[in-house]
Amino acid sequence: MLFCSICCFAQYAEVYPTNWWTGMKHNKIQLIFRADHESFSNEKVQISYPGVSITGTHKFPNGKYLAVDITIAPTAKPGNVQIRFTDGDKKNDVSWSLKERRKGNGTTYAQGVQPADFIYFLMPDRFSNGDPSNDHVAGMRDQSLNRDSIFLRHGGDLQGVINHLDYLQSLGVTTLWMTPVLENDMPDRTEHGYAFTNHYKIEPRIGGDAAYHKLSDELHKRGMKLIQDAVYNHIGLYHWIIQDAPDKDWVHQWPTFTNPNYKEQVFFDPYAAPSDKRQMTDGWFTNMMPDLNQSNAYMSTYLIQHAIWCVEEFGIDAWRIDTYKYVDLDFMNRCNKALYDEYPKITMFGEAWGEGIVNQAYFAENNINTPFKSNLNGDIDFELLFGGVYPALTQNNPGRLYQTLSMDFLYKHPMTNVIFLDNHDMSRIFSVLNENVAKQKMAISWLLTTRGIPQMYYGTEVIMKGISNPDGWVRLDFPGGWSGDTKNAFTQQGLTEDEKAVQELTKKLGNFRKNSSALKTGNTMQYVPANNLYVYFRYDNNQTIMCVMNTSDAAQTIDFTKYVERTAGFTKAVRVADEQQFSMGDKLSIGANEMWVLELKK
Amino acid sequence: MLFCSICCFAQYAEVYPTNWWTGMKHNKIQLIFRADHESFSNEKVQISYPGVSITGTHKFPNGKYLAVDITIAPTAKPGNVQIRFTDGDKKNDVSWSLKERRKGNGTTYAQGVQPADFIYFLMPDRFSNGDPSNDHVAGMRDQSLNRDSIFLRHGGDLQGVINHLDYLQSLGVTTLWMTPVLENDMPDRTEHGYAFTNHYKIEPRIGGDAAYHKLSDELHKRGMKLIQDAVYNHIGLYHWIIQDAPDKDWVHQWPTFTNPNYKEQVFFDPYAAPSDKRQMTDGWFTNMMPDLNQSNAYMSTYLIQHAIWCVEEFGIDAWRIDTYKYVDLDFMNRCNKALYDEYPKITMFGEAWGEGIVNQAYFAENNINTPFKSNLNGDIDFELLFGGVYPALTQNNPGRLYQTLSMDFLYKHPMTNVIFLDNHDMSRIFSVLNENVAKQKMAISWLLTTRGIPQMYYGTEVIMKGISNPDGWVRLDFPGGWSGDTKNAFTQQGLTEDEKAVQELTKKLGNFRKNSSALKTGNTMQYVPANNLYVYFRYDNNQTIMCVMNTSDAAQTIDFTKYVERTAGFTKAVRVADEQQFSMGDKLSIGANEMWVLELKK
Repeated sequence: MLFCSICCFAQYAEVYPTNWWTGMKHNKIQLIFRADHESFSNEKVQISYPGVSITGTHKFPNGKYLAVDITIAPTAKPGNVQIRFTDGDKKNDVSWSLKERRKGNGTTYAQGVQPADFIYFLMPDRFSNGDPSNDHVAGMRDQSLNRDSIFLRHGGDLQGVINHLDYLQSLGVTTLWMTPVLENDMPDRTEHGYAFTNHYKIEPRIGGDAAYHKLSDELHKRGMKLIQDAVYNHIGLYHWIIQDAPDKDWVHQWPTFTNPNYKEQVFFDPYAAPSDKRQMTDGWFTNMMPDLNQSNAYMSTYLIQHAIWCVEEFGIDAWRIDTYKYVDLDFMNRCNKALYDEYPKITMFGEAWGEGIVNQAYFAENNINTPFKSNLNGDIDFELLFGGVYPALTQNNPGRLYQTLSMDFLYKHPMTNVIFLDNHDMSRIFSVLNENVAKQKMAISWLLTTRGIPQMYYGTEVIMKGISNPDGWVRLDFPGGWSGDTKNAFTQQGLTEDEKAVQELTKKLGNFRKNSSALKTGNTMQYVPANNLYVYFRYDNNQTIMCVMNTSDAAQTIDFTKYVERTAGFTKAVRVADEQQFSMGDKLSIGANEMWVLELKK
Repeated sequence: MLFCSICCFAQYAEVYPTNWWTGMKHNKIQLIFRADHESFSNEKVQISYPGVSITGTHKFPNGKYLAVDITIAPTAKPGNVQIRFTDGDKKNDVSWSLKERRKGNGTTYAQGVQPADFIYFLMPDRFSNGDPSNDHVAGMRDQSLNRDSIFLRHGGDLQGVINHLDYLQSLGVTTLWMTPVLENDMPDRTEHGYAFTNHYKIEPRIGGDAAYHKLSDELHKRGMKLIQDAVYNHIGLYHWIIQDAPDKDWVHQWPTFTNPNYKEQVFFDPYAAPSDKRQMTDGWFTNMMPDLNQSNAYMSTYLIQHAIWCVEEFGIDAWRIDTYKYVDLDFMNRCNKALYDEYPKITMFGEAWGEGIVNQAYFAENNINTPFKSNLNGDIDFELLFGGVYPALTQNNPGRLYQTLSMDFLYKHPMTNVIFLDNHDMSRIFSVLNENVAKQKMAISWLLTTRGIPQMYYGTEVIMKGISNPDGWVRLDFPGGWSGDTKNAFTQQGLTEDEKAVQELTKKLGNFRKNSSALKTGNTMQYVPANNLYVYFRYDNNQTIMCVMNTSDAAQTIDFTKYVERTAGFTKAVRVADEQQFSMGDKLSIGANEMWVLELKK
């Protein structure tokens, strides 16, 4: 077993969390000490620091680990806390710090994301290489660097993102979400970031802690927000939790490798077999990603503390939770609650890709009476995409989009669902739409006008394509992100007319959205589609936006009188994309596969 | 306008309801008087009968009608009630009766249907002609009689049903449901019965009131039950409500003919447009079936009283409600409550064929928090068929059946949903299954073992086929129902071996079910399907039934140890269809497209 962190301990033992803060509500902390020696089984531990007291200790079967419960009094001051281990005459000290809290106490960070935001989702390794010096990091297992392979590292990093924040803002983007940034010291497939090997270290090949701090600061200076991608379900195989386990039950153990059954039904099905439920929550995704046992109190405390630690340390605004439905749901509620308690404005959304709308709604706060009630704000809205947008745009069937949106009565907070067209696991929308540019424009027009928090996957604005088989094809480099790229989406150099047009539409709607109360916080009204013409409104007392989606292959007439509840009193309609003005007394013709976003005027 | 009842009034005026009973909880009755003269506008009305008092009267724009509210005291005795109309010196009497209640006060009738029952659903015109004398009835608009046409009358009747109750019982059937039996004096398409022209008259061409009374009595003598098919949404165009309307708002009026939009989403969609909701509830199915306005208090009282009247008059046990989602839902709750109040054991199930499971569950008592809460016991379970059985048996995808059943947590009473394979509006299951006899056997084995109240459509047990385009093809005559039929399913004369085999399987499982506590009232446990093998159990403390459905096109192995929660402690499995016994220590092979129903033994 080779793993770097074992052989380069900076002091007698490492401590997780690596620090804490004064003045936190969450002030009862469980410190996990981890050493390269097994002497914790005999040692006594003491802390002499004003306001910090030990309330308990726990030894593990593996003597390299010790859990120490401490309470940090509200009166405690920031400073270095010496923690002394004694065994007879032997004395060893470990230094640990209590820091001053990040400024703003959850107002300038942990702000949550709202429907007024517009999220850009990117993979750091694939967006832009801003610092070639970190392309290789000595000692790490994956030393690949080859932009010609979809599975190897490409060298993108956080500095690359920082370099292009102007670009993101030009799109109307307010919020950045990246695939996970924690260390993934795995032998291969390290581009995605979902196999953590150290919870308390930012991946050095994207810039490490310093670059992440810098990115967070740069975003907040611009009034932008940062979402972190959290993984509670599993770790990478080279994490110490599996390589040098404190106890064998920090991870779910199986006699032979066992996958989950991928059936979220086991949680609510009145007829579910207990054995099926166990397989769902305890199975391993791959033999490289052991499944964490959150019903182990030490494991779950470790994860909850880490979540709070990240928000405070890096100034995170919101939390995206990976593989939500595979995690112990009681743990998830406890973990979410800990974050909500500490940061009342923080929002979270879960990846709960299920079989239908009910299955998805089950994992967020909903209006279904069930023994288990999730406390999550929102879901990533796979159903609105698969059950709604896909049929509308690929099968000329807007009725399914109408139906899927009607199901919003199942959610407590449908507006806090994150809506999207594609992501790092799915075929890019342009490929789903058979590379039809007109449909791509419809899709983006829908994304930026329907209810919820829009999320755009990097490159969708310049119609990047790719089928997710394998997933590497939907993780290609953003054009212009690497020095020497002949095509550059940041400058439009080398973009086709279609690519420019879609990017311009995104900018137009993305920026219009920023000042549109109807789109940001307004109500929604939708009409039963007729002749494959789907019409919905976003509206409030100050503004009415009429969205007309013609999913048919023929031109259609817009009859404003049909939508009387929302059109009465208005006489003119201004098309946002090109600011053309129409008289609502006329019957207008909208072309096949067009979507018009109209602002109605008196 | 020609309509017989106008020209053959037996007395000064007709009265609806045509009678009532003493000792009913529902003792405040609104009598609607209807005459062929317009003199009600001036007349006074009096009743001199002990315990019967008038509490109010209401005149209509059409002077041929008068509403009179009466209260029947608990002390009132059965007898003829004289109702006197006076206008100056003119006096006219109308005779109306208070009858003694049907024996049993809702215990020997209004029993409700339960999962222990097995419903047979037939169309009286198409099952058996037991009384050729009523094939034509003089004066009625539809004088057709031609068994060669799928749209004309065939001559079947209630006596035909009575003649074959032994046959139904031989299948294990406990309960009869027929398409509506009220008069349909329409010019054509009178075979289905859903266009009432007189609420207080049983269709004479199926035998009239006398035959319906006789059928009810014969059923109850055998311990069997009777379900009535109710239609609240619309009437036939030749009903007096439209031909000689008391007031124009008893029916929804439109400037031009307007269909419903068929979108039940309007009821729960948080974004629904009011105009869409109105079209859904108020639109007309066809110009031959005007849409009733249940928000008119006279109309709704008329319908509610008629429902109670039918149960008491004919000894109805349960209530099937047509086109449930097109009716005013507040009215439906009031109407259902009136029946539940009068008959605490009665059950009802609605036809709420919607777009997905949530839409369907909305119309029954469910576990979804919504402003409107339906009080209906159960739904006709279209979703379990379309979303579950169809994919399982036509696409080798039992995962959809597993998923659909898992949604039962949405229902308050999933066991009271009526489950089925086909009906008078849908393609017959044998045609859906591409005339695959093995799959037909699987379908029937599923129907008689899964949760809910099974309903078999006439002829499915002898693999009748037909595609519902048009619907007449799924309404063909039951073989043997007409004298001279060369093929006779009652006697098996002329049946093919396949037809006999499916009929025998139905009998075997239908009768096994009668004595199986696990199937009638037991719990359900289902396992995640693997390799297209779907396994579920019905079980209680006394019995365990294991159902193994192999929807794949290859043989599969049954590994009893996989289902440990339900197989532990048992050693033998007896296959119900042929009573073959297997050792559970063996790994058994089940053939492609086979379903085994196994009773486990110690």
